[in-house]
Amino acid sequence: MVKVNENFLKLPGNYLFSEIAKKVKIFQEKHRESNLIRLGIGDVTLPIAPAVIEAMHKAVDEMGQKESFHGYAPDLGYEFLRNTIAKKVYGALGCEIFADEIFVSDGAKSDSGNIQEIFGVDNRIAVCDPVYPVYVDTNVMAGRAGEYSKETEQWSNVIYLPCSAENHFVPELPKETPDLIYLCFPNNPTGSAVTKDQLQVWVDYANKMGSVIIYDAAYEAYITEENVPHSIYECEGARTCAIELRSFSKNAGFTGVRLGYTVIPKDLVRGGVALHSLWARRHGTKYNGAPYIIQRAGEAVYTDEGQAQVKEQIAYYMRNAKVILEGLKSAGFSATGGVNAPYIWLKTPGSMTSWEFFDYLLEKANVVGTPGSGFGPGGEGYFRLTAFGTYENTVEAIERIKRL
Amino acid sequence: MVKVNENFLKLPGNYLFSEIAKKVKIFQEKHRESNLIRLGIGDVTLPIAPAVIEAMHKAVDEMGQKESFHGYAPDLGYEFLRNTIAKKVYGALGCEIFADEIFVSDGAKSDSGNIQEIFGVDNRIAVCDPVYPVYVDTNVMAGRAGEYSKETEQWSNVIYLPCSAENHFVPELPKETPDLIYLCFPNNPTGSAVTKDQLQVWVDYANKMGSVIIYDAAYEAYITEENVPHSIYECEGARTCAIELRSFSKNAGFTGVRLGYTVIPKDLVRGGVALHSLWARRHGTKYNGAPYIIQRAGEAVYTDEGQAQVKEQIAYYMRNAKVILEGLKSAGFSATGGVNAPYIWLKTPGSMTSWEFFDYLLEKANVVGTPGSGFGPGGEGYFRLTAFGTYENTVEAIERIKRL
Repeated sequence: MVKVNENFLKLPGNYLFSEIAKKVKIFQEKHRESNLIRLGIGDVTLPIAPAVIEAMHKAVDEMGQKESFHGYAPDLGYEFLRNTIAKKVYGALGCEIFADEIFVSDGAKSDSGNIQEIFGVDNRIAVCDPVYPVYVDTNVMAGRAGEYSKETEQWSNVIYLPCSAENHFVPELPKETPDLIYLCFPNNPTGSAVTKDQLQVWVDYANKMGSVIIYDAAYEAYITEENVPHSIYECEGARTCAIELRSFSKNAGFTGVRLGYTVIPKDLVRGGVALHSLWARRHGTKYNGAPYIIQRAGEAVYTDEGQAQVKEQIAYYMRNAKVILEGLKSAGFSATGGVNAPYIWLKTPGSMTSWEFFDYLLEKANVVGTPGSGFGPGGEGYFRLTAFGTYENTVEAIERIKRL
Repeated sequence: MVKVNENFLKLPGNYLFSEIAKKVKIFQEKHRESNLIRLGIGDVTLPIAPAVIEAMHKAVDEMGQKESFHGYAPDLGYEFLRNTIAKKVYGALGCEIFADEIFVSDGAKSDSGNIQEIFGVDNRIAVCDPVYPVYVDTNVMAGRAGEYSKETEQWSNVIYLPCSAENHFVPELPKETPDLIYLCFPNNPTGSAVTKDQLQVWVDYANKMGSVIIYDAAYEAYITEENVPHSIYECEGARTCAIELRSFSKNAGFTGVRLGYTVIPKDLVRGGVALHSLWARRHGTKYNGAPYIIQRAGEAVYTDEGQAQVKEQIAYYMRNAKVILEGLKSAGFSATGGVNAPYIWLKTPGSMTSWEFFDYLLEKANVVGTPGSGFGPGGEGYFRLTAFGTYENTVEAIERIKRL
């Protein structure tokens, strides 16, 4: 008799965004006339940039002709894309990252879920609290998180790094030593950023302890302040302790196009094994590459034309972020983020829980946000709004919130 | 100090096709004038069908317009594609499979590698020998295969189902009871097929034992004989014991487009848990859907125009298969497959090992094939040729082999 993976059964409830979708659906069935504004899930709304559209049309045509047809892609991604990323992303930042250290994938969600596979089950992970739920959930599924306590809403074998107003949503080094450290800056959900010096502390710590940092830089394109690093490889010594996850979803609106990549420097060795070789083996055995058409789309993002166009999109979203942040503050809310990230993180008014405020906002303002508690116990009493709506909707949503 | 996944280190050597690529590269560097013909890896050569190209252009245009832009796809796939598959694939076969039992993915390689995650580590798997290497390798990586013996080339915790000329490459029920049974028909690499009655024996066995069959039907489009099932759900009782993996790579040439799907009937329950819910959770947590453009491409395969075009492609490849099979037989080889599959499986001449014959064919005929031993110890002394080349190259390759 086959045995199921019992670790899956330990996961409490649904994936956060499925839960929100369910609540919204019920509300909409009851209030068909309502004009709902969604500032909840981090999905973009602007169409794909013209330079990228053009590149995809060209690639589609190539696939339709015998002479230019492309079958199986190289496991780790086409050289044209890996070379482009090495030069235009890391070269431009002055980071020493080579094309063959870049693994192209179908997106940062897959990579952030799959990366834990190359590590043994007997590792202890550390995560910021609150945090993007995929890090913890995928470690639960692998049997690495221990047991869940309904009381504390924490997993017994996870080290939580509290991020709250007191520490400006930047975690301090933990007392217990973790093996794997998930960091995400600019942060989802709090929108906070770290300076290069602050990140250097973590790099030095990981090198000293033999830990590995999994650095999620999905939101780096939204950084507007100086001295906030776009990549962990801007820190000295990161090549021997850090894996970086990157996404095209937020910097080029690829949420429905699907493209991302992971960087593992060849100098990152643990127990005598290069982690690069393990991830290469996983890619080679369980994955068959991102579609040729989509890899050409990714390449087009880094043309001069493409860069100009996606930067305009980001500026559009960051104008929204400003509207939200300033609007909330003028309405008396305590709110942060929105300066180096498309997320605004606000304190719920009075003693409202995150889900109470979700219901309140849905009911009274017909605005959908994300309850902070969905990102971990440390998010209780907080709420996330995203800058990915249209400008008009964003202004309207804030007006409604001000009128509450 | 972080610990790596030691199971990865147990894998001997490289992924089969990486090894072949390396050998071919060395040969080409030594013999730059040689006119190499590749009938090794199962990659298609015909361009994507015009109906599919048209659908992709349309979808690319939609992504470039605000009104028709698509962000995150539904985790499990767009309804338009799932409904099409339910009707055009399973409805047409008379199989009771519903749209919400179909999970769209980026291909059958990913799914056949990832599906084992929903099962506990303490399950025993059974595989045909020889077999597509991904089934065993991914179970090794998960710690489910036990230890490797260099002598027998077998894993201690894997049940091997021998497939040889004696049993016409159709496995018999094993003596020890497996929990998970991987079956692939039409078979890769042997090209053999099973009748509906033969497959029914396995379905009945799995239901009796509480095992689960993972049925890889990637090559079903190549079936030409009657009474060979295209889906395991043509067998009675398969809804309570079988998961089916499907690919667009071979039926529509999508090796570089990337699209596949997995079917898990809601009636498939083990230990009180519906496997459907576990796979849904995995998809929701570790995956973000196939690109909108690619899902529209998949839908176009099932239009009348698309079907006519892809059937022509398959006929083209099957003409190649006939050339190979008949050519080899007339040259005195013992060869099978090629009737319901794009693979021809031949006995190496004399006492040559698979790799000796690989080198011999490369050196003397400049033809690349795949050594049977790469598919498991039972493949030793055999060799695989594929029908995915051009007609002209296929004819030329067989002429060269005849002249040896």
